[in-house]
Order: sequence, then structure tokens, then C-alpha cells
Amino acid sequence: MKAIIYIGLKPGVLDPQGRAISRSLNDLGFEEVTKARQGKVIELDLTAEDPAAAETRVTEMCEKLLANTVIESYRVEIED
Amino acid sequence: MKAIIYIGLKPGVLDPQGRAISRSLNDLGFEEVTKARQGKVIELDLTAEDPAAAETRVTEMCEKLLANTVIESYRVEIED
Repeated sequence: MKAIIYIGLKPGVLDPQGRAISRSLNDLGFEEVTKARQGKVIELDLTAEDPAAAETRVTEMCEKLLANTVIESYRVEIED
Repeated sequence: MKAIIYIGLKPGVLDPQGRAISRSLNDLGFEEVTKARQGKVIELDLTAEDPAAAETRVTEMCEKLLANTVIESYRVEIED
């Protein structure tokens, strides 16, 4: 089973990486870019049988290790 | 218009971040995790009218700046 976790900064949190990206793109002539935000994707391979139970466990992983829940939000997808 | 770009290491490229994640999860008792890979997501706000033209431009951005195509692959999604 596979879990895909999307982690991004919460709205309102300053995103210096995103600003650097949009400025660089503008400098390169991509003037249609008005804003950029950067996040992470983590793909996990799991030895699990039950998708619902796997989702609970992966949420626990996010809370304990993968996401900084003060400034980041996350979304979990489970795939067979 | 919005573009979402997923950037990940190509298969076979060493992923030290991913290894650190899977080892840390195992150490925390999440023994069902057998492998982890970490990638990036970049979300762009665009002032563009035509989705097909926007996709071409965003692909150009990936080739020129956003992805290191020697070791990374990317996927572009355009949203209204």
C-alpha cells in the first residue's frame, strides 16, 4: 500500500522560498506568474492491509514527525 | 489560473531525505513503513487565459528553473 502526503505552509505564513521562485520566474521573463508557494510531498510504501487503519497511522506520523503543525497543514491520500 | 507542479527524484537516484524519513519513522515505532521518498510541490498563480498555452509556459519554467532534469522528473497540472 502507498501513502502520499502533501505538506504545505498554512495560509498567512511567510514563504520565502515561494517568493524567491516567483521573483526568479519574473526575472526570466515569465511575467504571468503573480505568486508561488512551495510545499513537500512524501510518498511512503507501507506493509498494511486496511486502508482506513493505514490512514490513521499515517496521520499519526504527520502529527509526530512529518509536519510542523504550527505552520504547516497536510493532506493524506492512501493508494492500493 | 493555477498551476501545480510536482517534482520528484527520478527512480534510481539516491534519496537521503527519504531514507532519513523512513528510518526515523521506524525508530518511532511505525514499522510498517518500508520506503519513503520526498519531493516538492510548487503552486503558481498565473494571469493566463488559455490552459494549453499556460501548460506550455509552465513546462518551460520547469526546464529552465524549477526542476533539475538531470536527476528530477516533474508533472504539471493546470487548474482554472
